[in-house]
Amino acid sequence: MALPRVSALRASVRAQLSAQCYHRTFHGSSARTGRNRASVLVAGGAALVAGLIAGASRIQRAEMTGARVPTALDGKDLESRCSCFMAPPVTPLEGLRSPDMKSRMELLIMETQAEVCRALAEVDGGASFIVDRWQREEGGGGISCVLQDGKVFEKAGVNVSVVHGFLSEESIRQMKSRGKSLKTKDGKLPFSAMGVSSVIHPKNPHVPTIHFNYRYFEIEEADGNKQWWFGGGTDLTPTYLNQEDIVHFHQTLKEACDQHSPTFYPKFKKWCDDYFFIKHRGESRGVGGIFFDDLDSPSKEELFKFVQSCAKAVVPCYVPIVEKHKNDSFTPEEKLWQQLRRGRYVEFNLVYDRGTKFGLATPGSRIESILMSLPLTARWEYMYTPPANSKEGEILKVLREPKDWVH
Amino acid sequence: MALPRVSALRASVRAQLSAQCYHRTFHGSSARTGRNRASVLVAGGAALVAGLIAGASRIQRAEMTGARVPTALDGKDLESRCSCFMAPPVTPLEGLRSPDMKSRMELLIMETQAEVCRALAEVDGGASFIVDRWQREEGGGGISCVLQDGKVFEKAGVNVSVVHGFLSEESIRQMKSRGKSLKTKDGKLPFSAMGVSSVIHPKNPHVPTIHFNYRYFEIEEADGNKQWWFGGGTDLTPTYLNQEDIVHFHQTLKEACDQHSPTFYPKFKKWCDDYFFIKHRGESRGVGGIFFDDLDSPSKEELFKFVQSCAKAVVPCYVPIVEKHKNDSFTPEEKLWQQLRRGRYVEFNLVYDRGTKFGLATPGSRIESILMSLPLTARWEYMYTPPANSKEGEILKVLREPKDWVH
Repeated sequence: MALPRVSALRASVRAQLSAQCYHRTFHGSSARTGRNRASVLVAGGAALVAGLIAGASRIQRAEMTGARVPTALDGKDLESRCSCFMAPPVTPLEGLRSPDMKSRMELLIMETQAEVCRALAEVDGGASFIVDRWQREEGGGGISCVLQDGKVFEKAGVNVSVVHGFLSEESIRQMKSRGKSLKTKDGKLPFSAMGVSSVIHPKNPHVPTIHFNYRYFEIEEADGNKQWWFGGGTDLTPTYLNQEDIVHFHQTLKEACDQHSPTFYPKFKKWCDDYFFIKHRGESRGVGGIFFDDLDSPSKEELFKFVQSCAKAVVPCYVPIVEKHKNDSFTPEEKLWQQLRRGRYVEFNLVYDRGTKFGLATPGSRIESILMSLPLTARWEYMYTPPANSKEGEILKVLREPKDWVH
Repeated sequence: MALPRVSALRASVRAQLSAQCYHRTFHGSSARTGRNRASVLVAGGAALVAGLIAGASRIQRAEMTGARVPTALDGKDLESRCSCFMAPPVTPLEGLRSPDMKSRMELLIMETQAEVCRALAEVDGGASFIVDRWQREEGGGGISCVLQDGKVFEKAGVNVSVVHGFLSEESIRQMKSRGKSLKTKDGKLPFSAMGVSSVIHPKNPHVPTIHFNYRYFEIEEADGNKQWWFGGGTDLTPTYLNQEDIVHFHQTLKEACDQHSPTFYPKFKKWCDDYFFIKHRGESRGVGGIFFDDLDSPSKEELFKFVQSCAKAVVPCYVPIVEKHKNDSFTPEEKLWQQLRRGRYVEFNLVYDRGTKFGLATPGSRIESILMSLPLTARWEYMYTPPANSKEGEILKVLREPKDWVH
């Protein structure tokens, strides 16, 4: 998501938070110290996901499906809901009482951020998130949560942004190039945009990287006409091929899609394969998932519910895979192959990813939140070509010829 | 340099080479084996640069200046000149007998490649270059020389390419956007392009990274009119600030420029600062050097001689700095800072560098030669900000406010 002319305000949010849902990490006996771990708030409770991951040595879809739409937060009042977030929402509470889509979406992305951070902190067994709450001069702001150098995760970032103001000329051009017809007044176009985006890079090469992003956009044209749309997706980037994991991942996403339309999964699966393609390498970034943009039908209500299902599917589609493999043994050669694949991830994000390119090209963007998606470490070796019959060759084959994983 | 629709032909060039100038590496007693070191040809002789680096613990400009225009190869016939290259030139010998600029430039870039590779192999004390000679289906080809995981160098690539054919629509558009007026016939434009480009990433954080690139372009318009131009530059990217090194580097480039025009150094120094700017970070990639493009005056002959002086200045502006610092001790924290700066290098190359972007956008490019410029390893930490009064803060200040190093 683009954040034009952001003035970063890095704030310690501890003092501002209710103690209801927050407590310091270092749960269990694994109190760790480190450059980035001291004095930060973390998602620790994680009762929400404990059932999914405790003692799970294999993927257990039954439990996950049951837990996919948590009800623990339902029925509580707004203040109580917000107290479980990683930081106070960008919009003041009184602004969030409105039942409009902007308020509902902001609550959803804040809840998603908290849910994912808690699940990651729990599965990492003692990691802590740095929580940065920042404001944007022209309106809005964001909350960036980053876990670095944990036990399980090399780098995990979950970012929320809620911004509003006027679209830049460049943004308008980009939207027009995507087929949008937009009527500006004196070149100006008021907009609101909000989203949650995340990239999670684990240490163990047998645990895949996941990326997800769900966003909502509103524009008011010169004649008062309001345009709105949703975008988003969740996709997986393994270092090594594990058929069972990939089928689980796609199946979970398909189930989330199928609740809303039988056309969604096949359409958004293909869109994902097309989008996350590293053209100059002739290979996909990963094994796909779902991706969509500019979605404005059948209706705002139905699409919100769809996006909600997708957001709720993030933890169950991913965390069981992490739990299953986080203690797998691996060789230095496997770690090396992971680092080379991380290099490809960097190539995709810096060369092709629309959100990243757009953010970097926008003066005043909060660069650290945009580039949170890059791995902690990456590697480029000249002419490294694994043998076709190796495990490395096996995943390359799939990246070059995307497969259908579920039907 | 863009290499449209390249069909890579990775050939062992050993059998094709004269024994006159080539021999296996592993000179001295430091025979090393490794994944990328076995059975490759290397630049070993290095008599050319031995005077520069043997026993040099400090920068010795006097010797360097004397050695800047080597005469060892002068007066020999063409075959003898070519036998000292890293591989046979792209153009067959009989094609190189012509005294036209294309032949002279191809010989210059081949000589530069060999000279730099020999100097690097010598200063690395036992490293070997992988030499890949590849052909391009539509005409021409290239020679990529890469040293990986040496004693001194993490990754050093020196690439020659000599290509011809028809410019793509995209290339024509890019050239027009740079101000060129080009008359095409049925959208076609025959071109010849050749150049040497190199990025050298050392292991020790006290040894800076260097990049250089010198190229020549010819286009034949629909009415038979021929346009030509030179481009190039040499620039330095240190991890830590060492005033003496930077002054030496700029002074050596300035002397090369001053031989041709007093206006060149100030103009091309500024161009370099402007070009190698990481806009989204608000900082330069390094401490600059010189950079120029689309140069077609005062005359082809004078510009060739200027480019020749620049190419000959590469070894003396850089190798003494390597020699001076290659055995400096360093801490894990200094290595970490180097890795973070490598991350910035990747950001510049993938997001802004015109040659890289153009190459990646061109179907069929030889990607491994284009991305040879990326470091072996890089790192991205969220919100890493060194204190202003630290050594890391010191270099950042210079990267944010480029300085004049020589007058």
